[in-house]
Amino acid sequence: MSTYNKISGQRIQRIEALSDGLFSIAMTILVFDLKDPVSDTLQSNTELLLSLKSLLPKLLTYFLSFMTLGIFWTGHSTQFNYIVKYDRNLSWYSLFFLLFVSIIPFTTNILSNHIANELSIGIYWFNIFALGTMLFIHWDYAYKHDYLSLHDEKKILVDQAVRSRIRTAQSLYFFCALLCFVSTYLSIACIIAIQLNYALGIVSSQTQRPE
Amino acid sequence: MSTYNKISGQRIQRIEALSDGLFSIAMTILVFDLKDPVSDTLQSNTELLLSLKSLLPKLLTYFLSFMTLGIFWTGHSTQFNYIVKYDRNLSWYSLFFLLFVSIIPFTTNILSNHIANELSIGIYWFNIFALGTMLFIHWDYAYKHDYLSLHDEKKILVDQAVRSRIRTAQSLYFFCALLCFVSTYLSIACIIAIQLNYALGIVSSQTQRPE
Amino acid sequence: MSTYNKISGQRIQRIEALSDGLFSIAMTILVFDLKDPVSDTLQSNTELLLSLKSLLPKLLTYFLSFMTLGIFWTGHSTQFNYIVKYDRNLSWYSLFFLLFVSIIPFTTNILSNHIANELSIGIYWFNIFALGTMLFIHWDYAYKHDYLSLHDEKKILVDQAVRSRIRTAQSLYFFCALLCFVSTYLSIACIIAIQLNYALGIVSSQTQRPE
Amino acid sequence: MSTYNKISGQRIQRIEALSDGLFSIAMTILVFDLKDPVSDTLQSNTELLLSLKSLLPKLLTYFLSFMTLGIFWTGHSTQFNYIVKYDRNLSWYSLFFLLFVSIIPFTTNILSNHIANELSIGIYWFNIFALGTMLFIHWDYAYKHDYLSLHDEKKILVDQAVRSRIRTAQSLYFFCALLCFVSTYLSIACIIAIQLNYALGIVSSQTQRPE
Repeated sequence: MSTYNKISGQRIQRIEALSDGLFSIAMTILVFDLKDPVSDTLQSNTELLLSLKSLLPKLLTYFLSFMTLGIFWTGHSTQFNYIVKYDRNLSWYSLFFLLFVSIIPFTTNILSNHIANELSIGIYWFNIFALGTMLFIHWDYAYKHDYLSLHDEKKILVDQAVRSRIRTAQSLYFFCALLCFVSTYLSIACIIAIQLNYALGIVSSQTQRPE
Repeated sequence: MSTYNKISGQRIQRIEALSDGLFSIAMTILVFDLKDPVSDTLQSNTELLLSLKSLLPKLLTYFLSFMTLGIFWTGHSTQFNYIVKYDRNLSWYSLFFLLFVSIIPFTTNILSNHIANELSIGIYWFNIFALGTMLFIHWDYAYKHDYLSLHDEKKILVDQAVRSRIRTAQSLYFFCALLCFVSTYLSIACIIAIQLNYALGIVSSQTQRPE
Repeated sequence: MSTYNKISGQRIQRIEALSDGLFSIAMTILVFDLKDPVSDTLQSNTELLLSLKSLLPKLLTYFLSFMTLGIFWTGHSTQFNYIVKYDRNLSWYSLFFLLFVSIIPFTTNILSNHIANELSIGIYWFNIFALGTMLFIHWDYAYKHDYLSLHDEKKILVDQAVRSRIRTAQSLYFFCALLCFVSTYLSIACIIAIQLNYALGIVSSQTQRPE
Repeated sequence: MSTYNKISGQRIQRIEALSDGLFSIAMTILVFDLKDPVSDTLQSNTELLLSLKSLLPKLLTYFLSFMTLGIFWTGHSTQFNYIVKYDRNLSWYSLFFLLFVSIIPFTTNILSNHIANELSIGIYWFNIFALGTMLFIHWDYAYKHDYLSLHDEKKILVDQAVRSRIRTAQSLYFFCALLCFVSTYLSIACIIAIQLNYALGIVSSQTQRPE
């Protein structure tokens, strides 16, 4: 029994280490989308400033994707606050989740190259949707197989908080994505606004409470 | 004695950390193979969709290699559930294993660029074969030098499960690779099918049992 | 209560792992700025030497940014010596800090491409300033919410050391940045001189003392 | 006192995590030097094989640098088996060591692009020399400040083993580098031969003994 605990415990640490590695790389390689538009030496500061202005849309999508990765890193690592047992299935749910994390730099690049196309918003939204779905499946499996350190009332409270959080966030992202038919910039602004809201604390109180 | 345990224990943590780092990077840089084929702004969604269609083979090899890395990460980290002692030789077996992990983005790129050539399947298969071989050597060395936390009957059970798993998987990969003489796509589909089978659980029960 | 400790403790480990991952990647991908200027085979060593000479400004900015990352990694990880509690807000302050870490390879590239422009110094300085500001906010929040392992007199001593360190360093960086109006090389040399001073120990005694 | 231990202990874990991250990235991005020479679809396997043959020198330097990184990762992490205290100076020695680790992909690229030039061997050798020197300084500082878990006779034994290992290896690398005046390929073969010797165990017994 104690051997089993050790085994599964170790496995949790490994998937956490893999996740942290993968998230930190995805966050960092977003920067490859930001390329100095002029590699020649420019004499004038004004010329440099003007050439850098063309990077503004890419800075916007850079910020968007850093927020996306931050949000989902928080979501994924929060689940591990409660998960005490792990098995091969859960491990693969995490790996599929990480697959959609690793593809973020690609969908970000599509979005920043075609920031006025609704299709690129659609692709980016699908990436967010896939991340949310995998996060939900990951939690649901752990909950149903009793892999959590939670019991009784507290278990119900945390479970409701996690599920409602994912559902609410995904509904809002979907609504924002639909705004692309008005303006793709409005759509991006809307997603960033929701992410900033989650990051800077209104809903955070909700998940904090049951701890 | 306790000093020795601490030393070797620490060493295991380091090689695990290096492995997790290396796997997470290899998984993430696969994305560099996916490049937006048109970096100019396109007005129409249809044009964008058509240009992205050309990426489908690369998405296929991306998924293939993410699965390959996930499979071998699982295989390598599972061995560490039982390994309690480590030495310089074992460390170098892991490093040579990681050498073949780090080269996966290259063999993937060869495969995605020449997806209709049998040779590129051959090269990719050789990479998988080398990974399997190193994994086998790693386990075999740990087993023979009694570096495992296992004893008696359980030791035999786990050992058989690990060895038969590698042998069966490698035989199947070899068979899939041979299918390239019929069609390279069939070959890739076959490898992915086996990987999904391992990931989603049929054989997983086999390795789970002895725990 | 003990559950809460475990949860927050785990979370600290995760943000530390994410930081270490992100810093190590940012440090490593700086190397992409260093590109062999001639990829053709050159017969003569003299020709190779001359072509490599053109990389000297890039080697300078490479060294500058490695030092910058080293300095801020030290600053961030030193705070974690005293932080024993963590919450979602603190986690996001760290994430915003890491955002400015991940953008260092970009601002370094701008600087090395336009090493004679004052604007590129200004952009680089702003990156350092943002890192310092986030570090300050991170510490200030942890201090005010009593998330530190410090008490009484020692708490005051460490707090003063951390704050004065950030304030002094940032003032010096600002002064160095202003030197760009004399010469941008002077400005870079000044920043590196301050960083070497911090790294090799004069002020280090200050933060060491309270431990 | 116990607070101090915790602080310094934590710091050791952080520098180890940073090192593992940085090494794993440096090892993985070596692969960027291996680029499929023909990105167009080739009909014939023979054509593909011929085009890949041009990568052989790059495969050689890839293997060389993976071995170099493996050797120095082993050397650095072995020191941490005995180091129980850490301070800012030691942390910066590690960071300067890591600076020369992060630059390996660049010096490898120079070497693979100009594999027949003695200068590129010289640059690569200098990188190995700098790594060895930093490793020596790192150990020397830890030894002189009594930061090791070793005492009495065992301390002397381990110290001698570590120092003689670095000195012998560096002398051999220097000799190999000098061989470039005969042939640069001979020089590379010589370095790889020494590295394989260290990896596969003859001298390894020397450092193992005192444990």
